[in-house]
Amino acid sequence: MKDLRSEFGKRVRELRAISGMTQEALAYRAGLDRTYLSGVERGERNVSLLNIEKIATALQVSVGYIFSGERFSDTPSYNSKDQDLLYHTNNYSKFLRE
Amino acid sequence: MKDLRSEFGKRVRELRAISGMTQEALAYRAGLDRTYLSGVERGERNVSLLNIEKIATALQVSVGYIFSGERFSDTPSYNSKDQDLLYHTNNYSKFLRE
Repeated sequence: MKDLRSEFGKRVRELRAISGMTQEALAYRAGLDRTYLSGVERGERNVSLLNIEKIATALQVSVGYIFSGERFSDTPSYNSKDQDLLYHTNNYSKFLRE
Repeated sequence: MKDLRSEFGKRVRELRAISGMTQEALAYRAGLDRTYLSGVERGERNVSLLNIEKIATALQVSVGYIFSGERFSDTPSYNSKDQDLLYHTNNYSKFLRE
């Protein structure tokens, strides 16, 4: 997956276009600043859960719907070095509990 | 939908339980502090896109998969007062462009 901020921004712009709302209208409905929303759509904002919820509500879609589709379906995988670290971390956690 | 922070937290805890990872292991893999992750699972953190991505990567699931299921499928609706405001906002935006 490309940068999640950028993918999220494209998705918001896409859903806003479908709804026929202007950036001003969406920002107003979401209670967000228009320049902030503009930054979100350009992938420049590290949007947090509460603002994601506001944007979903303003678009009248569920949060699940925002993150649906090809764009958000890549499953990242760890390389073997990380798997190795996980093994040791899990053993260390076990050790701490025993 | 209940508070998105709380629903997100429950989802992370659920996926972590399925994976068999401890909080320590998941935090380590995600490059996050264990106390921060603990707060995320309790619904106390307003997690942003970059940390959502880190958590998804560490859980080896897609971001779309995190936000899938009943929990994130509520579509919020606007009341008539808001619809009315939207109408005026759209007209105002149109007015500004003309």
